Amino acid sequence: MSVLIKGGTVVTADQSLRADVYCENGLIAAIGENLEVPASAEVIDAGGQYVMPGGIDPHTHMQLPFMGTVASDDFYTGTAAGLAGGTTSIIDFVIPAPRQRLMDAWEQWRDWAGKAAADYSFHVAITWWDESVHQDMGTLVREHGVNSFKHFMAYKNAIMADDEILVKSFRRSVELGAMPTVHAENGELVFQLQQEMLARGITGPEAHPLSRPPVVEGEAANRAIQIARVMNVPIYIVHVSCREALDAITRARNDGQRVYGEVLAGHLAIDDSVYRHQNFEFAAAHVMSPPFRSKSHQEALWQGLQGGNLQTTATDHCCFCADQKAAGKDDFTRIPNGTAGIEDRLAVLWDEGVNKGRLTINEFVAVTSTNTARLFNIYPRKGSVTVGADADLVVWDPAGTRTISARTHHQSVDFNIFEGRTVTGIPSHTLSQGKVVWCNGDLRAERGAGRYIERPAFGPVFDAMARQGELKMPQPVHRED
Amino acid sequence: MSVLIKGGTVVTADQSLRADVYCENGLIAAIGENLEVPASAEVIDAGGQYVMPGGIDPHTHMQLPFMGTVASDDFYTGTAAGLAGGTTSIIDFVIPAPRQRLMDAWEQWRDWAGKAAADYSFHVAITWWDESVHQDMGTLVREHGVNSFKHFMAYKNAIMADDEILVKSFRRSVELGAMPTVHAENGELVFQLQQEMLARGITGPEAHPLSRPPVVEGEAANRAIQIARVMNVPIYIVHVSCREALDAITRARNDGQRVYGEVLAGHLAIDDSVYRHQNFEFAAAHVMSPPFRSKSHQEALWQGLQGGNLQTTATDHCCFCADQKAAGKDDFTRIPNGTAGIEDRLAVLWDEGVNKGRLTINEFVAVTSTNTARLFNIYPRKGSVTVGADADLVVWDPAGTRTISARTHHQSVDFNIFEGRTVTGIPSHTLSQGKVVWCNGDLRAERGAGRYIERPAFGPVFDAMARQGELKMPQPVHRED
Amino acid sequence: MSVLIKGGTVVTADQSLRADVYCENGLIAAIGENLEVPASAEVIDAGGQYVMPGGIDPHTHMQLPFMGTVASDDFYTGTAAGLAGGTTSIIDFVIPAPRQRLMDAWEQWRDWAGKAAADYSFHVAITWWDESVHQDMGTLVREHGVNSFKHFMAYKNAIMADDEILVKSFRRSVELGAMPTVHAENGELVFQLQQEMLARGITGPEAHPLSRPPVVEGEAANRAIQIARVMNVPIYIVHVSCREALDAITRARNDGQRVYGEVLAGHLAIDDSVYRHQNFEFAAAHVMSPPFRSKSHQEALWQGLQGGNLQTTATDHCCFCADQKAAGKDDFTRIPNGTAGIEDRLAVLWDEGVNKGRLTINEFVAVTSTNTARLFNIYPRKGSVTVGADADLVVWDPAGTRTISARTHHQSVDFNIFEGRTVTGIPSHTLSQGKVVWCNGDLRAERGAGRYIERPAFGPVFDAMARQGELKMPQPVHRED
Amino acid sequence: MSVLIKGGTVVTADQSLRADVYCENGLIAAIGENLEVPASAEVIDAGGQYVMPGGIDPHTHMQLPFMGTVASDDFYTGTAAGLAGGTTSIIDFVIPAPRQRLMDAWEQWRDWAGKAAADYSFHVAITWWDESVHQDMGTLVREHGVNSFKHFMAYKNAIMADDEILVKSFRRSVELGAMPTVHAENGELVFQLQQEMLARGITGPEAHPLSRPPVVEGEAANRAIQIARVMNVPIYIVHVSCREALDAITRARNDGQRVYGEVLAGHLAIDDSVYRHQNFEFAAAHVMSPPFRSKSHQEALWQGLQGGNLQTTATDHCCFCADQKAAGKDDFTRIPNGTAGIEDRLAVLWDEGVNKGRLTINEFVAVTSTNTARLFNIYPRKGSVTVGADADLVVWDPAGTRTISARTHHQSVDFNIFEGRTVTGIPSHTLSQGKVVWCNGDLRAERGAGRYIERPAFGPVFDAMARQGELKMPQPVHRED
Repeated sequence: MSVLIKGGTVVTADQSLRADVYCENGLIAAIGENLEVPASAEVIDAGGQYVMPGGIDPHTHMQLPFMGTVASDDFYTGTAAGLAGGTTSIIDFVIPAPRQRLMDAWEQWRDWAGKAAADYSFHVAITWWDESVHQDMGTLVREHGVNSFKHFMAYKNAIMADDEILVKSFRRSVELGAMPTVHAENGELVFQLQQEMLARGITGPEAHPLSRPPVVEGEAANRAIQIARVMNVPIYIVHVSCREALDAITRARNDGQRVYGEVLAGHLAIDDSVYRHQNFEFAAAHVMSPPFRSKSHQEALWQGLQGGNLQTTATDHCCFCADQKAAGKDDFTRIPNGTAGIEDRLAVLWDEGVNKGRLTINEFVAVTSTNTARLFNIYPRKGSVTVGADADLVVWDPAGTRTISARTHHQSVDFNIFEGRTVTGIPSHTLSQGKVVWCNGDLRAERGAGRYIERPAFGPVFDAMARQGELKMPQPVHRED
Repeated sequence: MSVLIKGGTVVTADQSLRADVYCENGLIAAIGENLEVPASAEVIDAGGQYVMPGGIDPHTHMQLPFMGTVASDDFYTGTAAGLAGGTTSIIDFVIPAPRQRLMDAWEQWRDWAGKAAADYSFHVAITWWDESVHQDMGTLVREHGVNSFKHFMAYKNAIMADDEILVKSFRRSVELGAMPTVHAENGELVFQLQQEMLARGITGPEAHPLSRPPVVEGEAANRAIQIARVMNVPIYIVHVSCREALDAITRARNDGQRVYGEVLAGHLAIDDSVYRHQNFEFAAAHVMSPPFRSKSHQEALWQGLQGGNLQTTATDHCCFCADQKAAGKDDFTRIPNGTAGIEDRLAVLWDEGVNKGRLTINEFVAVTSTNTARLFNIYPRKGSVTVGADADLVVWDPAGTRTISARTHHQSVDFNIFEGRTVTGIPSHTLSQGKVVWCNGDLRAERGAGRYIERPAFGPVFDAMARQGELKMPQPVHRED
Repeated sequence: MSVLIKGGTVVTADQSLRADVYCENGLIAAIGENLEVPASAEVIDAGGQYVMPGGIDPHTHMQLPFMGTVASDDFYTGTAAGLAGGTTSIIDFVIPAPRQRLMDAWEQWRDWAGKAAADYSFHVAITWWDESVHQDMGTLVREHGVNSFKHFMAYKNAIMADDEILVKSFRRSVELGAMPTVHAENGELVFQLQQEMLARGITGPEAHPLSRPPVVEGEAANRAIQIARVMNVPIYIVHVSCREALDAITRARNDGQRVYGEVLAGHLAIDDSVYRHQNFEFAAAHVMSPPFRSKSHQEALWQGLQGGNLQTTATDHCCFCADQKAAGKDDFTRIPNGTAGIEDRLAVLWDEGVNKGRLTINEFVAVTSTNTARLFNIYPRKGSVTVGADADLVVWDPAGTRTISARTHHQSVDFNIFEGRTVTGIPSHTLSQGKVVWCNGDLRAERGAGRYIERPAFGPVFDAMARQGELKMPQPVHRED
Repeated sequence: MSVLIKGGTVVTADQSLRADVYCENGLIAAIGENLEVPASAEVIDAGGQYVMPGGIDPHTHMQLPFMGTVASDDFYTGTAAGLAGGTTSIIDFVIPAPRQRLMDAWEQWRDWAGKAAADYSFHVAITWWDESVHQDMGTLVREHGVNSFKHFMAYKNAIMADDEILVKSFRRSVELGAMPTVHAENGELVFQLQQEMLARGITGPEAHPLSRPPVVEGEAANRAIQIARVMNVPIYIVHVSCREALDAITRARNDGQRVYGEVLAGHLAIDDSVYRHQNFEFAAAHVMSPPFRSKSHQEALWQGLQGGNLQTTATDHCCFCADQKAAGKDDFTRIPNGTAGIEDRLAVLWDEGVNKGRLTINEFVAVTSTNTARLFNIYPRKGSVTVGADADLVVWDPAGTRTISARTHHQSVDFNIFEGRTVTGIPSHTLSQGKVVWCNGDLRAERGAGRYIERPAFGPVFDAMARQGELKMPQPVHRED
C-alpha cells in the first residue's frame, strides 16, 4: 500500500517547505516536488495544508486500574481517538502495585495493549523497592526497550516513592542509561491538606485544588531535580502545571542541568474555576492531579514553552465517566483522578498556540511530537518527516474548524473538558504506519494494528553527562601518618 | 553594684550616638551625656570605643552528647569563653533522643546548664513524633518559655525528621506561636553519598564536603520553606552555608514569606580547602555540617547579610578535641561533627565585615545581637541599649588587635579554626547583668551566674500571619443536589 | 506647652510596649508608665490606641508648576491635610527648569514653603548639567542640609536626565555623601509610545498606561541601579509601581547592593482599570506617572514591602483639579500628571496592610515613617519615639473608621482616588512639634509653623561603601620595557 | 566535480547516524549507506570520523578600518583560515561611518569581499539616523538579502547608537522583518571609566577590563532587550561575555521573549588574567570588547549554552598585529580592539565542550552552525546535512590533535590567543560548495570562490510575533461627552 500526500507544505521542528510526501510499506519513501510514484498510490490532496509528523502523546493511561475502578478508554478506543485527532503514538505507563514484580506488571500491560490501533511504548513506574526491582529495571531496559521510569511523589500510602526510592532508582537509571521521570507533588503535604479539608467540612471538588496548591508541586519538582543533579542523571517532570514547578525546572536549566518538562493541553487551556462549579458532575469531571490552576499559571506555562524550558506536551489521558466520578460525591479524595484529551490535544494547542501567535508552526511540531521523540530516543523514526521514518503523519488543515464535544468525540468517556470550544486548525487526514486512518471525519482505526515501540537506552545526553561526571570525580587525599 | 561606661559611642542596630551608659542592678539605668551617677559606680573609660549590646549566639551546643562522645566545652567554660569575646547570651539546644520524652530531655539540659556564666535559653529539637511530643511542645511553650523548635533534616537513622514530622511539628508550632527552625540537609542524599565515598575508598575528611554538596542543603532548605509556606508558619534556617540555601530563602522572602536565615562566622570566613589538608588532625578539626564551602559561597553569604536575606550570625559552637576527632581516622563519617567559635565570632565578623566595608557598624550590631533578640522575642530586654534592658554590653575597641590562637583562647578545646588570624576590633570590656566580666584580657566569669531566659510565644509576625491566613480561608461550595 | 499621651501602646519599628509619652517644648521628654508631669500638661487619653511616630511622606509636590499649570495644594494646605491624616513631615522637591541655576530654584522653593504647617525638607532635582550644577550641588549639601538629589529618567524634551547626566550627578553625589534618587521610566520609549498612541487615534486617558508599560519602568530602574553600582553610590528608586522595577531592585539587593525602593499608597491599592472608565474626568483624575497597574503588580509590591525590598511609602502628592486635568481632553499627553493622597496614606496602608495581615504594626511604622528617616538621615530626630526626638506623633485608633471622600477631605483638590473606601484605623490625634494639631476631626494646623529640616550628608551606608570601594581599587601593572 | 564522503557518522543538530554523503555540483546530492556514485567521484574516507555541516561564524570583521588602522586579515586570508578550521561561511559587518549613506558603505564592503574564499553575508550597522537610513534599510532588506542590523551601544563619540536610534531602527526592523542585533555595553559608562582610569594613571591594558566591567554589559543587554520587547521585535545579543548579560537574556527568555545570544570561543576559554601580564604585547593582543572575564563568567557562559539561553558561537574575528596594537602603548584606549579566532573556534569548542562533556556532539553542531543558519534564515541551505543543501561540510576527526600556534596558523596575524593549547578533535577535511578545500593540513582555498549569500527577511518567529502583537492591540475607549 502506498500513499502520496500532494501539494502540501511539510512542516517540521526545523523548517517549512513545499514538498510532496510519498509513503510506502509503512515508511516515508520520498519527499520532494514532482515525485514519481506508482499509479496505484492513493493520493491525498494537501493543498493549503501542512504535513507534519503525527502527534506523540508521552503521557496516557489507557484502561488503568486506579482508585477502585478502571479508566474507561482502553488501548483500542483510546489510541483510535488519538488517530482521529492526529496523534499517532503514545507512551503509556506500566504501574506495578507495591510489591508486585515489575516484570509481572509489564506483561499485564503488554497484554492489554495488544488491541491498540496506534503504535505505543511504555514508561514503567517504580512504586516500591527491593532487589527484584533493581533487577527488573535492568531486564526492561536491556531486553524490552524501556528507557524511562516513572516515580510518583504523591499518593501517600499507595504508590508514592519516597526520597530513598528516588535515590536508588535514579542511581540505577544512570547505570542503565534510562531517563527518570516524576509526578511532582509532595505526597505528605497533599495527604495532610486533604485531611484538613475534610476536617473542616470542605468535602466537594472545590477542595481538590486546595489540597494540592502550586507550592506542593513546586517543592517536589525542585526536590526531584536536585536529587537528579546529585545523581548526575537527566530528569523529566511530567505534567508541569504551575509557575512554581516551572521555576524549579527553569532555574536548573539556567544552570545547565539536563532537565525537561512536559505540560498538558488541559493545564494550558483550562483554569481552576471549574472546581467551584455548582454542578458536582461538572466539577468532578475536572478532578485530576495536579489540578487545573489559575490563569496566571497558564500564561507562565506558555512562556515556558516559548522559552524552551518546557519541551513536550501531553494529556495524561485517563478517562472516568460520571458514574465513576460519583464515588467521591461525599469525599473529594475518592473521586477518580483523571481527564481525557488525546483526541483534542493538537487542535487545542494549535488554536491557543499557533493562532494566538504564542508558537510558530515549527515549535508546534516540536512540542507535540519531535521533542518527545528525541527525549525518549525514538527520533527520527518518530517525530520527523524524513525518508525512512515511520509514515505516521498528520495533514493539518489550518482553516478547518471543529466544535469540541463529548457528543461527537471518539473518546470513550461521557465528558470533554474542552466542551463547546470551537477550534480553528484540525487534522484532515492522519496516517499511521503509512495507512490513512482518519480522513475528513472518517475514522478507520484498526484494532490491534498498533505496534510496541522499543526505545533504546542511553539517549543523546547520557554520554556527555557521563564524561562530565568523570571529570568531576574527586580524588582521595593521600596522608602520610 | 553599678557601672558607668563613659565617653563612648553607643551603637545600636538603628543609630550611633555619643552617650554614656549607666548600669545598675543588672539593668541599664540611664543613657545620655553628663549623667549623674553615684560616686561608688565603677567607671569604664570608653573613649574612642563603641558601646554595643552584647552578642547573642543563637546556635551553640555546650557539653552535647553526640556521635559517641561529649562536646568538650561545658555550659560554664563555653559561656565564659563567649563573655571573653563579647557574647553575653546563648540559645542552646535540647536534643531528645528518639523516643525520649521531651520533658525528660528538657530537665536534663536545664540541669547541665545550671553552671552557665552567662544568660542562656533553649531551642528544643523534635527528633521523633507521637502524642507525647505534641503535648510536651505545649508544655514547653506555655510553661517554660520555649518559643522555637529545631528539626534536623539530616542524620538519617538517628535524629532525622522526615516530612511527616516536619508537617506535624510545624502545624503544632502554629498553634503554639513558636518558630520552627531547621538544619537543612537532605539526609537521604547525605547517607547515600557517604556510602559511595566509603565504597570508592575515599575515607578521609576530604570526603566530608563531597558527601554534603551545596545542592543537598539547598534542596532541604527549599523543602522546609515550602512546607512552612503551606502550614502558614514563619521559619528559621540555621547555619546557611551556601548559595543554594540562601537562594531558597531569598526567593521566598522576595515573595513576602516570613523566612529567616542564620549564618555562621566560620562559613563566612573559612573555605573548603581545609578538608584537603595533608594533616588529618587539621582537616578533621574542621569537620562540621554543613561543611565549609568554596570562596564564591562566602561572597554570596556576605551579600545575603547585606541585602537582609540573612538576619543572624551564630557559631554552632560544638567543640571536640583531637582525640575525639580521631574516632573517624579511618572513616570520615565517624568524625564528631563540630567546631568552636563562640569566643571569636564578634571579632571575626567585625574584621571581615566592618573593616572591609561589607557591613555598617549598625548592621554589625543587628546581625550579632539585635535581630536574634527580635526573632526569638526577647527584644528589647536583650539586643538593645535602652533604659530598662538587661545590662549585657560590650565595649568595643575598633583599634585593638588580637591574634587568634588555641593557645590563648578560653574555649575548652585544642584547636581554633581561626588560628593565626589577626583581627582588628576587639572587646575591651564585657558586661553581663551589669557586671564587668571581661576587662582588657581579664576574664571574670562566674560559674552559675547565668540565668535561664524565658522567651514568650507569638513573636512579632504571628499575629499578622494569622490574620492573613484567615482571610485566605477557603469556603465550601454549596451544591444543591 | 506640654502634652501627656496616656494609656496607649507605643509602637515603633522595633517594638510595641505599654507606655505614656510626655512631650515638652516640641520634644519627647519622657516615656514610661506613671510619669510625673506638670499639672498643666494637656492629657490625651490613648486607651486602646497606638502611639506612633508621625508619618513622613518622602515624596510630595506642593504648588508645583508643571505642564502649564500649578498643583492645587500649596505648602500650607498640603501639609495641613497631611497632619489631618497623621503625616507630620514631608520631603518635597526643588525642580529647576533646564538651565536654571539650582540655587535660584532652591530659593524659590524655600520661599514657597514658608507657609507650611508641618516640618519639611527638600530633594533637589538635577535636570541639566554644567559646572554650575556641580558647584550648586556642593553648596546645597554643605550649607543647606540637602542630602538627596532627584533625577527624572522620563519627560523627554523637558526635565529628562540622560545617562551622561546620571553618571556625572551620581559621581558628584558620592563625593558629597548624598543619595541619588530616580524617577525610573525610559523617556525615549515613553515618548515614542505616546506618539504611536496618538497616531493610532487613541487619545484618551486609556492611552496613558499603554504609553508607559511596566517594562519601560523596569528598564530604567535597572539602568539607574547599574550606573549606581558602577559609581559605588547608594540609590533610591521613587514610586516603584510594578513587578519589573521591583525585580530590578530585588536582584541588586540580593547581590548586596545598597538599593532602596519607595512605593506609593495609590500603587498598592488602585488598579489600572480606572483609565478605561467611561467618564473622562474620572479617568483623567488618575493620570499620574508611573500609572496605576494591574492587580498582580499590587500583590508584588506588597510582597516587596514584606520581604524588605521596598522600604518606604509615599504619595507623590501632586493635586490637579478637574479643570486643570481638562487640558488633556483631546490629547492624553497634556493631562497634568498627578494625584493627591497625603491625607489618606496612613489610613489606606493600615487598612490594606495591617488589617489584612500583610504588615505587622511595627512594619507599618517602619514603612510609613522610620525607614524614611533613616535613609534620609534624620533619624532618630524624626521617625522614632525616643526621648529627645521631635514630638511628631500620631495617636492611632485601630477601631476608628472613616469613609474617604473628596467632599470631606482637607486636601485642596476636587477628587480623591480613594473615594468611597471605608477604612478601619484612623488617627485620633496628631502632634507636630509637641502641639496637638489634629484632634478627633478638629484640624488645628498653623500656617507657617513648619520648619525646614536640614538633613546631614553621609548617611549610614556611605562609610562602609567607601571602605569597600577602596579595597577594590585596582592597581596598575608595572611593566618594564 | 563530485565527492563521496564514505564511512563516517553524519552528525547534525538533531541526530547522529551512519551514512555516506555524496556531493555534486556544490550541493549535497545523496545521503545514505551504499550510495551509487560515479566512478569519477573523489572519495574521502571518513571512517571513525564525524561528518558535520561546516561552521558558520556569524561575527567577523575582515579588513575592518577601525581605530585608525585596518584589520590585518582580509576577506581572502580570513575566510581561508576559516576553511582550514572547518568554518565554511561567515556573516561579516558593513559599518557605515556616521553620516555615511548605508548604500555607499554597503557597496564598499561588497567590493572588499569579492576576494573571499568562502561564502559570506553581511549584517549592516546602524550608526546614525536620518530618513536616508530608514530608506536604505528597506533597500538592503528588500533588494539585497540583508535580514539583520547591528547596533553598537558602546563607542561614544563614534558609532554608538543611543536609545533614540535603537527605538527607530528596531521599529523599522519590525516592518522589514529583520533581526536587530546589539553590541551591548553602556557607552557612557565605558567612556567615564576610561577617563577615570587614565586620570588615576592606570594606562596599560590592565585598565581595559576595569573600564568595561560586567555590569556595563549587563545593563546594555537588558536595555536593548526591553526596548525590543516594547517594539515587539526579536533581538540577538552579540558576544555575550558575562553572567550579567546572560542573565538579562535568560530572564527575558524565561518570560517567553524571543531573545538570542551569541558567545565567542574566546570568552568561553580565556580569562581576564591576560590583561595583567607583564608583557605589553601579550596583554594588548587580548584587548577586545567586551574583554575576557574571570573564570566564573566562563562557567556561566557554558551553562548558558547547555540550557539553551545562548544559541550561537562566533569569534568576532578582527586581527591586529603587534605594531598595530602598539598604538595604545601609553593609553589603553588607543589599542585597536580585536582578536583572531576563526580558524580555531571549532577545535577549541570541541575540546572544551564535547571532550569535557559540556555539550553533546549534536549540540556542538547546533551552536557552531545550525542555530546561526536558522536564526539568520539560511537554513537548511546552510547549517544542515540534507539533500539539496550547500555542500559545506567538515569531516571531523575526534582523535586528531593539534597544538595551536601563531607560527602555524593560517590567519594573517602574529598572535594567537589560544597559543600553545593542544586540542583533541580537528577537521581532517573541509568542503566548501562541494569542493575539498582543506585536506589533512593542505589548504586549497581559492581567492574569490566565495559567494555572497542573500538572507530572506521574516525569519521563523516574525509571523508568530506579529500575530501575538495584533491580539494585544489596545482599543480606544469610546466616551460620549
